[in-house]
Amino acid sequence: MKKLLNDPGRVVVESLAGLAAAHPDLLEVDLGQRVVRRRGGTRPGKVGVVSGGGSGHEPLHAGYVGVGMLDAACCGEVFTSPVPDQFVAAHHAADGGAGVVHVLKNYTGDLLNAEMAHDILRAQDVDALEVVVTDDDVAVLDSTFTAGRRGVGATVLVEKLVGAAAEEGRDLAACAALGREVNARSRSMGVALTSCTVPSAGVATFALADDEIELGIGIHGEPGRRRAPLQPAHDVAAALLAPVVEDLALRRGEAVVVLLNGMGGTPLIELYLMFHEVRSILHETRGVTVARSLVGNYITSLEMAGCSVTLLRADDEIVRLWDAPVATPGLRWGA
Amino acid sequence: MKKLLNDPGRVVVESLAGLAAAHPDLLEVDLGQRVVRRRGGTRPGKVGVVSGGGSGHEPLHAGYVGVGMLDAACCGEVFTSPVPDQFVAAHHAADGGAGVVHVLKNYTGDLLNAEMAHDILRAQDVDALEVVVTDDDVAVLDSTFTAGRRGVGATVLVEKLVGAAAEEGRDLAACAALGREVNARSRSMGVALTSCTVPSAGVATFALADDEIELGIGIHGEPGRRRAPLQPAHDVAAALLAPVVEDLALRRGEAVVVLLNGMGGTPLIELYLMFHEVRSILHETRGVTVARSLVGNYITSLEMAGCSVTLLRADDEIVRLWDAPVATPGLRWGA
Repeated sequence: MKKLLNDPGRVVVESLAGLAAAHPDLLEVDLGQRVVRRRGGTRPGKVGVVSGGGSGHEPLHAGYVGVGMLDAACCGEVFTSPVPDQFVAAHHAADGGAGVVHVLKNYTGDLLNAEMAHDILRAQDVDALEVVVTDDDVAVLDSTFTAGRRGVGATVLVEKLVGAAAEEGRDLAACAALGREVNARSRSMGVALTSCTVPSAGVATFALADDEIELGIGIHGEPGRRRAPLQPAHDVAAALLAPVVEDLALRRGEAVVVLLNGMGGTPLIELYLMFHEVRSILHETRGVTVARSLVGNYITSLEMAGCSVTLLRADDEIVRLWDAPVATPGLRWGA
Repeated sequence: MKKLLNDPGRVVVESLAGLAAAHPDLLEVDLGQRVVRRRGGTRPGKVGVVSGGGSGHEPLHAGYVGVGMLDAACCGEVFTSPVPDQFVAAHHAADGGAGVVHVLKNYTGDLLNAEMAHDILRAQDVDALEVVVTDDDVAVLDSTFTAGRRGVGATVLVEKLVGAAAEEGRDLAACAALGREVNARSRSMGVALTSCTVPSAGVATFALADDEIELGIGIHGEPGRRRAPLQPAHDVAAALLAPVVEDLALRRGEAVVVLLNGMGGTPLIELYLMFHEVRSILHETRGVTVARSLVGNYITSLEMAGCSVTLLRADDEIVRLWDAPVATPGLRWGA
């Protein structure tokens, strides 16, 4: 294992200390609980937006805390759910008196721990709590850590759009409904060129031959649909797009938001090249317009090489909320 | 070679096509010349700021075109200088009638091609042209492609700060003087954990054993100061910082801007961890304050794993220009 770290058991807390030091204008970190909260807390009367999950997907989730996205996030060990107390602490950190939306990716461990946290919160007479679960990955129905589809790239889009809706004053039910709608309008699929290595394990999660890729990879290295020979970027883009477009039942003339996401180890020069392929296929073959796009490392798998494509069926309201100001370490514009 | 590409000879142009499609609000791309220019061109009367160099360092330079940074950039093949015609085209694309500053990294090929371009421009009666050369890398004095020190991370800082100065209306001489001062106040050193592979070569530029790192690596994989065993992040941070702090002659009580830069293949969780180490050493051992910081992939070497540290001796004016709005694909805040 070749990584820039000290003690594999302290990667998450030492990284969060760096995040806190790098962004004192945006956020504060409770290193004991490993909970990140918006600097100054949630504005009274604003719906809080919270997320949490295993670490190793940076900037997700802690890097999306700030203005116009998350109010708090809790961070588990690498690829491991936070414990219930962390979700409880994140809830309280984000509670501005108007209720809190919890955005969760559909993984069994995350959901179990979050549900225990919600029981604790209800016992504390906290009722204004809504849950949005993302499950946008079309690659496989069930997976190593999942009943049903996995939650991947749509999580970034849900966090951005619900964050914008909360910032402009929508109430708890409306924020949660928007989050569920954004998830329902989104589909993703990813590809791995290499594995990644969890620091506490010290060895690669899986192995791929030098001329082999894994189509439909999960963000923890879970198996996808199939292994295939290394192929031109155009063919990889087509292989990722086909099931996404079909599952979404996209029709000619529709518009989408595209997230072309890097898995962590693939350089930007390749990600922009892949975006060019994705956009060309959408335009020329599918008759689908790209209304907005995001190209870069947004939901990663440590140093895995590869990428994923997420499409969100757009409308004017989604584009308006997308364009709303956001100021977080991982996503920032207009503020 | 395991990369997301089609034809190694078309990586740069296909990636630029993706950049253009992803950021139509910020920039326009001439794919023939491989010149990227600010959308709508340079405001009349504003000093233009231009850079250019080999590709493979994304987001540098094309990803820094927009508001408050570069007005134009020209892109060579991977790790290869642009040709003179590209520098000429970038100059004209950035010329708003108040002269143009060319920011160049100190590599022999870049300087030769840029000098030929400047001769062509002078023959066209273009005289309002200033050159700022960055040479902040303390690792080695001369290098594979360099007489004198290499230009690395300071280039990002010069482009940001000169861009801010030009945006607020400083004249050509003042912008160039600021760029030279920022470079003179900056020092860098990097480390590689892995090599990278130039697409047209198809094989790794160099080889490192599984337990070996290269201290003082260049951004094209040029040899550094020494190979060393893989070591804790704290020790790597100390090894990078010591020559930087000493060469800058930083004294207790001074403040710096820190760029903790990823080489492309190292995930954000490790970069923030490294920033925590760098900041701790600066605070606790050196008595130096971090006034501002930037943590992420800003001047990369394709998919190389590793990082570099750049320190810029700060003052109030540098911090003020740092905080000025910037809107580019690679760096964005306040706009």
